[in-house]
Amino acid sequence: MLQRLKNFLIGEPLTHDNSSDDHLLSKVQALAMLSSDALSSIAYGPEQVALVLMAVSSAAIWWSIPIGILVLVLLISLTISYRQVIKAYPQGGGAYMVTSENLSPKFGLIAGGSLLVDYMLTVSVSVAAGADAITSAIPLLHPYNLKISIILVLFLMVLNLRGMRESAKSLMVPVYLFIASTLFLLGYGFLQILTGHMPYAATAHLGQPITGVSVILILRAFTSGSASLTGVEAISNAVPFFKKPKSKNAASTLFIMSSILGIMFAGITFLNWWTGITPHSGVTMLAQLAREILGDSWFGSILFYIFQFSTAMILAVAANTGFSAFPMLSFNMAKNKYMPHIYLEKGARMAYSNGILTLAIGAITLLFIFRGNTERLIPLYTIGVFVPFALSQTGMVVHWSREYGKGFWKHSLANILGALICYGIVLILILFRLGDIWPFFPIIAILMWMFLKIKKHYDGVAQQLRIDGPIKEHHFQGNIVLILVGNVTKANIGAISYARSIGDKVIAMHVSTKDTENKDKEIEQEFKKYFPEIEMVHIQSPYSSITQSTIQYVDEVATQADKDNATLTVLIPQFVPKKSWQNILHNQTSLRLKYYLKWRENIVISSYSYHLKD
Amino acid sequence: MLQRLKNFLIGEPLTHDNSSDDHLLSKVQALAMLSSDALSSIAYGPEQVALVLMAVSSAAIWWSIPIGILVLVLLISLTISYRQVIKAYPQGGGAYMVTSENLSPKFGLIAGGSLLVDYMLTVSVSVAAGADAITSAIPLLHPYNLKISIILVLFLMVLNLRGMRESAKSLMVPVYLFIASTLFLLGYGFLQILTGHMPYAATAHLGQPITGVSVILILRAFTSGSASLTGVEAISNAVPFFKKPKSKNAASTLFIMSSILGIMFAGITFLNWWTGITPHSGVTMLAQLAREILGDSWFGSILFYIFQFSTAMILAVAANTGFSAFPMLSFNMAKNKYMPHIYLEKGARMAYSNGILTLAIGAITLLFIFRGNTERLIPLYTIGVFVPFALSQTGMVVHWSREYGKGFWKHSLANILGALICYGIVLILILFRLGDIWPFFPIIAILMWMFLKIKKHYDGVAQQLRIDGPIKEHHFQGNIVLILVGNVTKANIGAISYARSIGDKVIAMHVSTKDTENKDKEIEQEFKKYFPEIEMVHIQSPYSSITQSTIQYVDEVATQADKDNATLTVLIPQFVPKKSWQNILHNQTSLRLKYYLKWRENIVISSYSYHLKD
Repeated sequence: MLQRLKNFLIGEPLTHDNSSDDHLLSKVQALAMLSSDALSSIAYGPEQVALVLMAVSSAAIWWSIPIGILVLVLLISLTISYRQVIKAYPQGGGAYMVTSENLSPKFGLIAGGSLLVDYMLTVSVSVAAGADAITSAIPLLHPYNLKISIILVLFLMVLNLRGMRESAKSLMVPVYLFIASTLFLLGYGFLQILTGHMPYAATAHLGQPITGVSVILILRAFTSGSASLTGVEAISNAVPFFKKPKSKNAASTLFIMSSILGIMFAGITFLNWWTGITPHSGVTMLAQLAREILGDSWFGSILFYIFQFSTAMILAVAANTGFSAFPMLSFNMAKNKYMPHIYLEKGARMAYSNGILTLAIGAITLLFIFRGNTERLIPLYTIGVFVPFALSQTGMVVHWSREYGKGFWKHSLANILGALICYGIVLILILFRLGDIWPFFPIIAILMWMFLKIKKHYDGVAQQLRIDGPIKEHHFQGNIVLILVGNVTKANIGAISYARSIGDKVIAMHVSTKDTENKDKEIEQEFKKYFPEIEMVHIQSPYSSITQSTIQYVDEVATQADKDNATLTVLIPQFVPKKSWQNILHNQTSLRLKYYLKWRENIVISSYSYHLKD
Repeated sequence: MLQRLKNFLIGEPLTHDNSSDDHLLSKVQALAMLSSDALSSIAYGPEQVALVLMAVSSAAIWWSIPIGILVLVLLISLTISYRQVIKAYPQGGGAYMVTSENLSPKFGLIAGGSLLVDYMLTVSVSVAAGADAITSAIPLLHPYNLKISIILVLFLMVLNLRGMRESAKSLMVPVYLFIASTLFLLGYGFLQILTGHMPYAATAHLGQPITGVSVILILRAFTSGSASLTGVEAISNAVPFFKKPKSKNAASTLFIMSSILGIMFAGITFLNWWTGITPHSGVTMLAQLAREILGDSWFGSILFYIFQFSTAMILAVAANTGFSAFPMLSFNMAKNKYMPHIYLEKGARMAYSNGILTLAIGAITLLFIFRGNTERLIPLYTIGVFVPFALSQTGMVVHWSREYGKGFWKHSLANILGALICYGIVLILILFRLGDIWPFFPIIAILMWMFLKIKKHYDGVAQQLRIDGPIKEHHFQGNIVLILVGNVTKANIGAISYARSIGDKVIAMHVSTKDTENKDKEIEQEFKKYFPEIEMVHIQSPYSSITQSTIQYVDEVATQADKDNATLTVLIPQFVPKKSWQNILHNQTSLRLKYYLKWRENIVISSYSYHLKD
């Protein structure tokens, strides 16, 4: 039944034949899959800038124009820089790969750890902002913000477990609808300004001096604005998913994405200022702007709802960037033995299911902790993305210096500028927003410690298991089989037949506790009646559970088997019911015994399955 | 490490010797363990009555006096009735047992299912009211109401997993502190009235006609008041835990408890009316009354905080009634095969751990759903307890009629009256509070369906497993062992040695996916180099995971083994790391294979454990 539910939700298993090439992404599909994080951030980025400036007064909002220009410079620099990353690393891997190879593996782990956390934040921030967009249009739904967010995460999880191509397909409509509707909104807005239908209503003129505006404030606002750039990384991580020529297609997708992002960010920042819109709780600034431009007529209202709907949709899709990038990154880190091997395994639909599940759980946890509050998540999100940005840019500079020697600086101008800006943002965040971002440091420290611990373990195991020299097989001279007997049932017959076939000596063992003493004597007699040829051992446990006494006796037999140079097989009968839900009704004791017995040496634990008819 | 954490939290395992008799409860201990649910309900019961009456006006509160008298009549009747239950059923089992035996097993399941849900509600309501008592005294903590409740549940869970006697011991101080401080409060209050220091300030005189007071309103208020009686059941369920003479001790404990409860309920209801206190959100009525009686002086304030503290404590302890009763009831129902066998098992400390864990999870879930709101939980709680009350009273009437024949009604007057009142309350709840209590019906329907389904399964299995007639052992003529090989490592050497010892024919099998094809050819060659005498089969899986292909091949070999009259053992090597956390780094594939292979017939699945050094 569970199997059927699984198949219904994520589809029938795929073979390699029906997966391979046509699961790769065209540019149009890739833009849908990978750009939504960056593009959708215009739904909250400009508002975050305004929110910081509002701390002084609404007049200070004119400063968002020069800040916006700074953000655009940063965007251009990052775009050029990541184009170079894509060309140098066509196998994907992004900041983690670049930093590991060019700086050091430990710096790589800092980048990787930051990004893992950051993808979770991407999912949380995007779905939370998506829920805001919905409730800006439909105030009735406001109390259900958090629930809407969680449902979105679960929905995306299922979509991704179904496999990649289907995700891209299903996400194309919302992304292109958003691009089209936003460009329409901006175009129509500028048209109205040019035709004099939308009067100038800014809260203050450009350049007007505002008391209270300090350099610190502007820098804080700038870091909030730079949160809009937290998606540029994704494409460089996913190069292997592109159709050939992979690098070229990825690079041009990145260029297209950055251009659209730049136009939208600039346009919205300008129109926000022109129309004099200020942040209000309950209605996003973007929703206010859309209302202002589209008007209150019935036709304008329809357009407004379409626009809000498309904003919510792209934010949901943006969360999906995390779902593409997180499993890939955990795959790469697991390949280098920094994360458990389970992240290497593909699920039935050729997706890295464990990464997808981990991400969904992490994002939902973050939503609960921050109760879906975008404003509180943003600074953490920003530091989480600019630390790996800075590291990978630095890595690129090292890369070029290795490749071109002395004249490297000509090739790495973009990277040097990018790195400087990124370090600057990290510095500003540490100096002026430490109260918001401090959790980043203990989290990264813990992750680093885990990564290194896992690596050390896997390396140790590999060394221990390596065969060095000729093989010495052990030749046993006998086989002892110990059968655990609960009640005397038909299941014993098969188990005993098997035990006799493989063993020279078969011992049946029954353990009783004080609670069941009398019944257990009957069981012993019954067993002797039906199987007179089998040696039976009946042990009284002084504990409430039979586990300890069983293990004690097994240990005794194991010692004897070792002396006799014999193998010891502990045969545990288990019931296999017809339906999987019935498993909770059986085998609890078997499972517990198997768990404890596996820690003992020189014992083979065998399960004799008795299949129930219904 | 997990083992050590477990031992730290719940203590070292106990043997029967250090558990047996001194784990039984004296009357003083039993009162602490089992009465807190009933006694603590005075913290919310009278307030719930007033809340319903307030729907008309604060003047209507005088009606809580006659309603209180009705509640007292109900209490007396229930007490007498449950004394008879204790005497007739010294083995415990309460409403479930009485109803099953005297009415029918299906009615018993209704009673049992209601009580299981109700114990969860007991825990939720009590910890929520406890949190209210705390925040009435310390308004600063108000935002953390829900968190306080959840911490209390977890704390009680750990306490109970540690075993019963320690719980009783640790709970005696709060229960007796509450009894003493409440009786002191009431006594001091009446003294002030008698000495004229506390003036009459009732919102309306007794008997004063109030417009808007209808019979329906009074009946609704009465059902809320009867929620105070939802703890009387617990003692009759726990008779086996008493010291000898069990029935007698249980009966007198019940009598003591009911007397204290009656005095408190009557006293608080009267004083609430006399002082003219009305319900306010944020401060409980009991806290208001305590303030009124104890005054604002520094000494009065100290007494007030002690009283609030003791109220919070007893409410926390009240939740513990659920922790004593739920595991016992699930044990009884599991013994009758209506619930999974896991509820039969005692944990390391002689407590029924699985019942305790189930209850804690259920209660926390309820707290989340109702966000810790007592008022919304109460009606559900009331129907959940009065349905089994009514059924067990009816059962007692049937019981007496069987025992005494025609003149039975003389012996069962108390039960008949009790049953009538209980049915009346259920009827009132259905007629006038259906909006609050409807979830009760689908929940009970689902539980009934589950109970019957589980019963049917266990019965079917028992029949299927019963040995009827002479035993026919099967004599095999060979043993085939199939070893699954991942990488060629030292772990293979031991597995192959074992396989050769028990098997006539040993096959090594390696499955590769498209992603790993090249590496897998190397593995094949390496294996052949080291183990030239073993037949090696290399299978290419078309799927992303190796599971399906492995199973297909195992099935083929199984068919062959069946033809050859040979056993088939599938030997799966697994790594046993030194520390339990390292398990998540290994064996994921082994576990999955074992899960899928156990559904195949005629295969014994064996685990060869390779113990890692670090």
